[in-house]
Amino acid sequence: MRHSKTLIPTLKEVPADAEIRSHQLLVRAGYIRQTASGIYSLLPLGNKVLKNVEKIVHEEMEKIGAVEMLMPALQPSELWKETGRWNSYGRELMRLNDRHDREFALGATHEEVTTSLIADEVKSYKKLPLSVYQIQTKYRDEKRPRFGLLRGREFVMKDAYSFHTSQESLDEAYQKFYTAYQNIFSRCGLNFRAVIADSGAMGGKDTHEFMALSEVGEDTIAYSDSSDFAANIEMASVHLDYPENTEAMQELEIVDTPGYKTMEQVSQFLHEPLEKGIKSLLFKVDERFVLVLSRGDHEINDIKLKHALEAFDVELASQEEASQLFGAEVGSIGPVSVPDEIEVIADHAVAVMKNAYCGTNENDKHYKNANPDRDFNISSFHDLRFIKEGDPSPDGQGTIQFAKGIEVGQVFKLGTFYAEKLGASYLNEQGKQETMTMGCYGVGVSRTIAAIVEQYNDENGIKWPKEITPYQVHLIAVNPKNDEQSELAEEIYQQLEANNISVLYDDRKERPGVKFADSDLIGLPVRVTVGKKAADGYVECKLRENGEQEDLHLSDLLPKLHAMFN
Amino acid sequence: MRHSKTLIPTLKEVPADAEIRSHQLLVRAGYIRQTASGIYSLLPLGNKVLKNVEKIVHEEMEKIGAVEMLMPALQPSELWKETGRWNSYGRELMRLNDRHDREFALGATHEEVTTSLIADEVKSYKKLPLSVYQIQTKYRDEKRPRFGLLRGREFVMKDAYSFHTSQESLDEAYQKFYTAYQNIFSRCGLNFRAVIADSGAMGGKDTHEFMALSEVGEDTIAYSDSSDFAANIEMASVHLDYPENTEAMQELEIVDTPGYKTMEQVSQFLHEPLEKGIKSLLFKVDERFVLVLSRGDHEINDIKLKHALEAFDVELASQEEASQLFGAEVGSIGPVSVPDEIEVIADHAVAVMKNAYCGTNENDKHYKNANPDRDFNISSFHDLRFIKEGDPSPDGQGTIQFAKGIEVGQVFKLGTFYAEKLGASYLNEQGKQETMTMGCYGVGVSRTIAAIVEQYNDENGIKWPKEITPYQVHLIAVNPKNDEQSELAEEIYQQLEANNISVLYDDRKERPGVKFADSDLIGLPVRVTVGKKAADGYVECKLRENGEQEDLHLSDLLPKLHAMFN
Repeated sequence: MRHSKTLIPTLKEVPADAEIRSHQLLVRAGYIRQTASGIYSLLPLGNKVLKNVEKIVHEEMEKIGAVEMLMPALQPSELWKETGRWNSYGRELMRLNDRHDREFALGATHEEVTTSLIADEVKSYKKLPLSVYQIQTKYRDEKRPRFGLLRGREFVMKDAYSFHTSQESLDEAYQKFYTAYQNIFSRCGLNFRAVIADSGAMGGKDTHEFMALSEVGEDTIAYSDSSDFAANIEMASVHLDYPENTEAMQELEIVDTPGYKTMEQVSQFLHEPLEKGIKSLLFKVDERFVLVLSRGDHEINDIKLKHALEAFDVELASQEEASQLFGAEVGSIGPVSVPDEIEVIADHAVAVMKNAYCGTNENDKHYKNANPDRDFNISSFHDLRFIKEGDPSPDGQGTIQFAKGIEVGQVFKLGTFYAEKLGASYLNEQGKQETMTMGCYGVGVSRTIAAIVEQYNDENGIKWPKEITPYQVHLIAVNPKNDEQSELAEEIYQQLEANNISVLYDDRKERPGVKFADSDLIGLPVRVTVGKKAADGYVECKLRENGEQEDLHLSDLLPKLHAMFN
Repeated sequence: MRHSKTLIPTLKEVPADAEIRSHQLLVRAGYIRQTASGIYSLLPLGNKVLKNVEKIVHEEMEKIGAVEMLMPALQPSELWKETGRWNSYGRELMRLNDRHDREFALGATHEEVTTSLIADEVKSYKKLPLSVYQIQTKYRDEKRPRFGLLRGREFVMKDAYSFHTSQESLDEAYQKFYTAYQNIFSRCGLNFRAVIADSGAMGGKDTHEFMALSEVGEDTIAYSDSSDFAANIEMASVHLDYPENTEAMQELEIVDTPGYKTMEQVSQFLHEPLEKGIKSLLFKVDERFVLVLSRGDHEINDIKLKHALEAFDVELASQEEASQLFGAEVGSIGPVSVPDEIEVIADHAVAVMKNAYCGTNENDKHYKNANPDRDFNISSFHDLRFIKEGDPSPDGQGTIQFAKGIEVGQVFKLGTFYAEKLGASYLNEQGKQETMTMGCYGVGVSRTIAAIVEQYNDENGIKWPKEITPYQVHLIAVNPKNDEQSELAEEIYQQLEANNISVLYDDRKERPGVKFADSDLIGLPVRVTVGKKAADGYVECKLRENGEQEDLHLSDLLPKLHAMFN
C-alpha cells in the first residue's frame, strides 16, 4: 500500500483526552478517531489490525469445531424480559423503539438471542453438543467510557455459546475454549494470565477471565510467585491458619474517641496497630441486616460475603439504617450488645484476636480489650476478606503477588439458567425432555488491540507483534527525488507485494525525519530504508522491536524477510 | 464440515410468511431465521454465503485502490442535523437516546460520518483523491419489511465514499467503481443490468443502479432490445416525435358522464379509445398548484415532473384542494377554464391531440372534441410520462422492453452537497481553500444473497453459483452403517479437506431420501454419493446445476473437482 493512497493521519501532539498509552498512540499513529464518546472509527490501519485479530480468532475457533453465525444487534425486548435482564441489566443496555413502538435492545451480549434460536431449532440429543460463535459489534452504554478502545460503547466482540446434554460435555467444551483462548492471546503476543473469576450476574458457576497484564488494567490479579495460581482478587480465597493468640485477656474498658471514626483514626489516636482493631460493618443482605467483623487491616470482599451467606444481593447499610438499629454512627458501631435480630459473622482472622478495640454503639466512644466469646458472640466464621500481597497462595505454593490486568476474554459455565428461561430443551436417548446445559465464551476483539499496544510500545510509538501488525514492512525512500532511490524503492515495493510480504510504502514528499518519526509511531516490525547506498544496491533494514539495524544488499532482503515472517 | 457438528435446520414446509422463492428457500434450507420482523440471524450456511460475497467485494475494492475502514453504527444526531437529514430522513432512520439523553441515529448510511471524518483529517490536495469503504451492518426501519433478506431492517452493506479535487477525478473514480460493481455482480453469478437511476434525496447527479433481473424485483427497468441502454423506468426519457395529427377539429360539446370518473370508465362509456382522452391531474408543486395534462393511456412520472419544474417536492393534490380550486371532483377536472393562478403544463404527446375528451370542472360531465390552443392554453410541454414497452429506445436503437429488477448496488456522484454541509475542504496547489467533490457507492451485501437465490433455484431448492456456495461438495454416504461406504466416505472427506475443496459431509443417520432432498434444498454445486459401488471404489458425482451425473472412480474424483473449482 502506498501511503499517498490511504489515510494515516498521524499527530505530533498527544490528544488531550487520552490518558493511557494505547489510547494516545492509536490516535497519534492514525489508527482510530473518536466519533462520539466511547465510539470510534477504525481508520485503515486500525481496521487492518482488527482483521488480523479476527483472523486469529476465526482460526482458533475453527480448530475447536465452533461454527460461525451472525446474529442481529437489534434484539426484541421480549427475549430480555424472559430472562429478567430487561430490568436487571440497567442503563448499560441501550434501548430503542421502532416505528411501531416496539421495544428493542441493542445487543450487549447474545445469550437471549442464541438460546432462543437453539431452543427453536435443536430438539434432539443427536444434534448436541453444538458450539456456535460470531464476531460482531456490541453496544454497552458505559457510565464512563474511556481509554479509547479499552472501554467503549460500541465495540467488536467474539461471542460463543455452547449447548450440551451433560455437565461432562460442557466441561469438555470449556476446556477446549480455554485452550483456544490461550492460543489466541499467545498469538496476539500478549503477556496474559487466565484467572479464576466471579460469575457475577450471569447465573453460572466456573469461570476464568483472560487478563492481559498491564498497569492500566482495571482489575487486580492475585497470583502465586511460585505456581500458576491466578485469580481475580475478588475471587482469591485466603487459606491461612491464624496462629493461636496466647495473650492474656484484659478488662474491657471504654475510652473517649471524640470525632475519631475510621479504623485509621482510632488506631492512631489509641496508639494501637490496625491489626488490633475490629472493623464492624453493617450490611444489608437481601432483606435482613448482618454485622460483619474483620481485623482492622483487612478489607471485606462483597463477593465472598455474598457467597458465604448465599445471598442474592449485599450492600453496606446506610447511615440512617445504622443509626436506627444501633443508635450510633456508622464509625462507632461494634459487636458488643448487638440487637437480637442482627446476626454477627466474622472473617476467620477475628477468631484469634485478643484485647481488641472496637465500636461501642455510642458515638465518640470505643472499647478497648474486647474479646470474642467473652464480650460478644459471633455466629459463624468465614473467609470474607480480600487476599493481600504476601499472603500464602491458596494452592499452598508460594506467596501472593498482585498485578493489574485488562480483561480480554472470559470463559463461562452458564449451566441451565438461560436454557430454562428460554425453553432450550431436547429429547434424550430415552425420549425424555431435558434442559440443555450451556457455556459462553467472549473475546473483546477491539479491546485486545488496545491491550496489545499497552504491552508493545516505547517512547516513540507502537511496536506491533508479527501476527497483528497492519503491514510487515515499512518502506521509506530518504530522498524520493533521487532517481536511484525512488527506482530502487519502487522495485522493492513491487517485489515485496509480489512475494506476499505486506508493505506500507511511504511515497510522500516529506522530510526524512518526518517519515522516520511516523514510522516509529506506526510501529511496523521492519523498516527498510532506501538511502544513499541505493546506488550500490544496499538498503538499511531496522527492527522496530529492538532497534537492530543492518545494511543489506537487495538480493539478501527478500530471503531475510521471508525468514522473519514465514 | 460434518453435518452433525453444525446447525442446518432444514424444513419441509414452506414458512407461512415467506412469499418469494429466495425467502422460502433460505429459511427452508436452514440459511436464515427471523429474530424479529425484518431482522434475521444468519445460520452457519447463511454466514458462509455472506462471507463469500464479502470476499468478492473486498477483492474488487482492493483492485481499484479503495481502502477499508470501519465506522460506527451509533452516530451522533449533530452530524445528521448539519446535513438536514435528521429531519428529512423520516422514520426509516432509527433513533435512540443514550444514558445522558444524547440523541443518536443507528447508521442507515454513512455520508455524514465519513465526510465529517475526512473534513477533520484531510486538508490538502496532496491527500486526494481518496476512496474509503467498509462492510458494515446498516439499520433502516422499513415501513413494510418483507421478502426475507431482500428488504430487512438490519442488513449488511458495503458502502464506499470517494473524495476529489475535481469533477474529472470524480468521473474517473465513478468509472472504476462502476467496473468493480460489474465484476462483483458477475462473480456473484447474477444476471444484472446497470441502469440509469434517479438521484432522489441524496442531492447528487449522475447515478446508476445495478439491478439483478428478477420477477420479484420492486423496480421496473426499461431496456432496449437492441442496445445496452437500460434505465430505471422512473428515469427513462421518452424520445418520440409524435406525428402531426391532421384530423379536422370538431365542435366542442358537453356530454353527461353520470358517475364515470376514471379515464377507463369514461373511455368505455364514450366508446372512445384511451388515447383520445386527456388526463388532467392537479399537483401540489412545492407551494403552488399545477395542472398536468397527459394522453389518457400515459402515466405521469412524478420524478420527471419534479425535474421539469425544478421542484423540491411534488404530490397529487387532495380531493379537498381540487374541489376548492375547481369546484369539481378530482375525476372531473380539466384544462378548459382553469383558474388564472394555476399553471397548465403537458406532456409532449398532448401537443398533437385533436378532438379529445376531458373533464369540464363540473361533476358528471365531460367535454368531447376539446382541442389545445383553441379551447385551452398550455404554458409548456415536457417529457413527463413514463416510458412504455414498445416505445423507441432513448438512445435511438431498438425498442423498449420492461424487466423487473432487484437493486443490489448503486454508484452515485454526490457532488459537493455533503462536503459543503460538513466543511470538507482542502487547500489546493495555490493554497486556496476549495470544497471537495464526492462520490458514494453501495452494495447491498445481504440483499445480493437473496437476489442470487432468486436467479438460482428450481422446484427442489437452491443451485448456488461456484463463488458463492457455502461448500463446494455435498458428500453423502447412502448407508453409513455399511462399513465400506462409511470408510470410503470418510476417506473422501479427509482427501477433500486436505486438498482445500470445501465439503459438507452428511454424516447423519438419516434415510437416503432425506439426505438427497436436503442436498437439493441446500444446493451445493456437486453432490458426491457413496453407495453400493463403494466396494469397487466408485462413487456417483451429480451436478446440482443441470442434474448431470456420472459414476467416477475414487482416483478420478479429485482431478475432476479440481478442474471444476480451480
